Amino acid sequence: MAGKIVTLLTDFGTEDGYVGAMKGVLLSGDSNLQVVDISHQIRPFDVRQAAFALFNYYRYFPKGTVHVVVVDPGVGTERSGLVLRTADYFFVGPDNGVFSFIYENEVFKGFRIEEEKINPTATPTFHGRDIFVPVALKLLAGESLENFTVPAARFESFYEKYHSSAPNQLHLKVIHIDHFGNLVLNFTQQDWEQLGRPEGVKIRLKRGFLYGIQRTFGEARKGQILALWDSSGFLQISQNQGNAARMLDMKIGDELVVEI
Amino acid sequence: MAGKIVTLLTDFGTEDGYVGAMKGVLLSGDSNLQVVDISHQIRPFDVRQAAFALFNYYRYFPKGTVHVVVVDPGVGTERSGLVLRTADYFFVGPDNGVFSFIYENEVFKGFRIEEEKINPTATPTFHGRDIFVPVALKLLAGESLENFTVPAARFESFYEKYHSSAPNQLHLKVIHIDHFGNLVLNFTQQDWEQLGRPEGVKIRLKRGFLYGIQRTFGEARKGQILALWDSSGFLQISQNQGNAARMLDMKIGDELVVEI
Amino acid sequence: MAGKIVTLLTDFGTEDGYVGAMKGVLLSGDSNLQVVDISHQIRPFDVRQAAFALFNYYRYFPKGTVHVVVVDPGVGTERSGLVLRTADYFFVGPDNGVFSFIYENEVFKGFRIEEEKINPTATPTFHGRDIFVPVALKLLAGESLENFTVPAARFESFYEKYHSSAPNQLHLKVIHIDHFGNLVLNFTQQDWEQLGRPEGVKIRLKRGFLYGIQRTFGEARKGQILALWDSSGFLQISQNQGNAARMLDMKIGDELVVEI
Repeated sequence: MAGKIVTLLTDFGTEDGYVGAMKGVLLSGDSNLQVVDISHQIRPFDVRQAAFALFNYYRYFPKGTVHVVVVDPGVGTERSGLVLRTADYFFVGPDNGVFSFIYENEVFKGFRIEEEKINPTATPTFHGRDIFVPVALKLLAGESLENFTVPAARFESFYEKYHSSAPNQLHLKVIHIDHFGNLVLNFTQQDWEQLGRPEGVKIRLKRGFLYGIQRTFGEARKGQILALWDSSGFLQISQNQGNAARMLDMKIGDELVVEI
Repeated sequence: MAGKIVTLLTDFGTEDGYVGAMKGVLLSGDSNLQVVDISHQIRPFDVRQAAFALFNYYRYFPKGTVHVVVVDPGVGTERSGLVLRTADYFFVGPDNGVFSFIYENEVFKGFRIEEEKINPTATPTFHGRDIFVPVALKLLAGESLENFTVPAARFESFYEKYHSSAPNQLHLKVIHIDHFGNLVLNFTQQDWEQLGRPEGVKIRLKRGFLYGIQRTFGEARKGQILALWDSSGFLQISQNQGNAARMLDMKIGDELVVEI
Repeated sequence: MAGKIVTLLTDFGTEDGYVGAMKGVLLSGDSNLQVVDISHQIRPFDVRQAAFALFNYYRYFPKGTVHVVVVDPGVGTERSGLVLRTADYFFVGPDNGVFSFIYENEVFKGFRIEEEKINPTATPTFHGRDIFVPVALKLLAGESLENFTVPAARFESFYEKYHSSAPNQLHLKVIHIDHFGNLVLNFTQQDWEQLGRPEGVKIRLKRGFLYGIQRTFGEARKGQILALWDSSGFLQISQNQGNAARMLDMKIGDELVVEI
């Protein structure tokens, strides 16, 4: 029988042992589980970084995987805990936008966790250990969602589509800066196809322009700035073997104008 | 049969491959082991940080788990290697205080490792790979402790209970600062219950006071400082969605006076 | 039957979810695989650091392990992907020097990956997910190398042996600085034996000299600088309980003169 898999994405760091506690609870529930570390280095409270990371890995896991995300600045407040069910996966985490890209890209059903049915003595500061991981165990054990959730209809999301101020002028935003300093924009290969795959793309930078979308880093010299599709289909601005965010002094939320 | 589990906590970082070597030795001993990373980001030589992390996760693992801790500034000197046995777990690591909280919280038996019986050609700089991990394999294989240890009676510990200078005045110390900048104090929920659960707690800060112990972050505004019980039962000073250590400019060892 | 093992070494960090995607592809190929994280904290594009880390762990894993290394500044250019086969292991990664120490220390056969036979629609920026991990799965499944590689004869390597300017004068270089600030030199215990184990070793530093090679850190006072063999057999300069690289203000590539 195929192994059962849980993935973990948090902003806990590892050095306090909190992630260790979550792993212990998981393995105490089922010592043959595969607990897969995605990252515990999400910037503290950075829901957007977590959402973007999740979008990059969730679809590659075997059917039946439970994806747990605990980046949860609102822990202990009124924000709900969620379970999302898609054709292939479960997602478990707080309703604070960490699942923004899932809402855009998947057909799903959402459920609010009834915390008191999971753990009436949950520590108010550590729902990762006391609520979300126990929920993951119930899902892996095949327990019915009715036993510990209620259906949900509205969800927090921060995703904002690019907009156009004129037919040939698009306004894009930096939605993520990755480990290498690549600037990821809210414009996908799919968006580009819907516009008829325009070839004469011209991206305005603070100083100068970028022309065209390249296929690979190899088409630029070392240190050169270029635009290309990232491995999840978003447009990104990169510096070949360098750090574009630092080079261009840009940050999340900054706008870029593109002429097509 | 339940999977066999070893947890690893070190200050090695991962980028030199030293932790990789320990994992290789473990999997060469038994390729069906579950090797669970707790952290390799303990600050170099920071025995206290390791001790605190261990306290946060050890009890959540299945019975039979072997917890290996290698934060070992004295490697290659006369400090001994230890095995501790409790009702549920084994602990393996150096006798330098990393197990300070275990001594306070568990009934245990301690044993000193006879290094030459484990590995007469151990590299003097890398007992993680050459001594502690081989010991973990022997414990998982059920080998008798008599074969490679001698009973031990005294152990290094740094834990220091809070003290009182007057019946209503407690002197607490910062014993740990976590990833989020929370200040953890040497005063537990159990200590508070032994004092009769005093309600009018007043904590003196450099500027001003904190009144009361809150149940959750949600009871404070964003940026506010509050006192609450952490998820392992220690009193902690936190800043809601911020970094209390930075905000209050406090560090490990700093004292706080509490009036009850 | 023994578990199948893949190790992963990258410079991706974990916070973007790219490593998560690689793990998902591996577990979708075989959900009972052991996927072992070595590190994802290699400095971006630092092929040398990756090569050194690999040298420290590869030999400790069970026979049959596939070691995947993705530190790949040339992804999407003409650099090839490689498979190396030794008596015990497979290595998979780019031909850019990450395997420099393997070439020095192992009898091996090398093969170039024919990318279009692995994945004709591989993302040009993410061969870790789209080429190297699928190759690892084929190797674990026992597929014949002929199906997706061609034999290779020349390989990129950066390893440079120490040189002598006089019979008793050796010129060594810093080839690596580890997590603790230890300076690793291109001079091995084997080199030292070939020179007849000279005892009167004298290492010239910017200020002063080091005499002799110590057995362990314990032979120096706290803060003292010493020379000793590291756990993989390289000569290293260390500061007892400190950071030698910072203390001596030295970096990778710096030269040291040794008199024997």
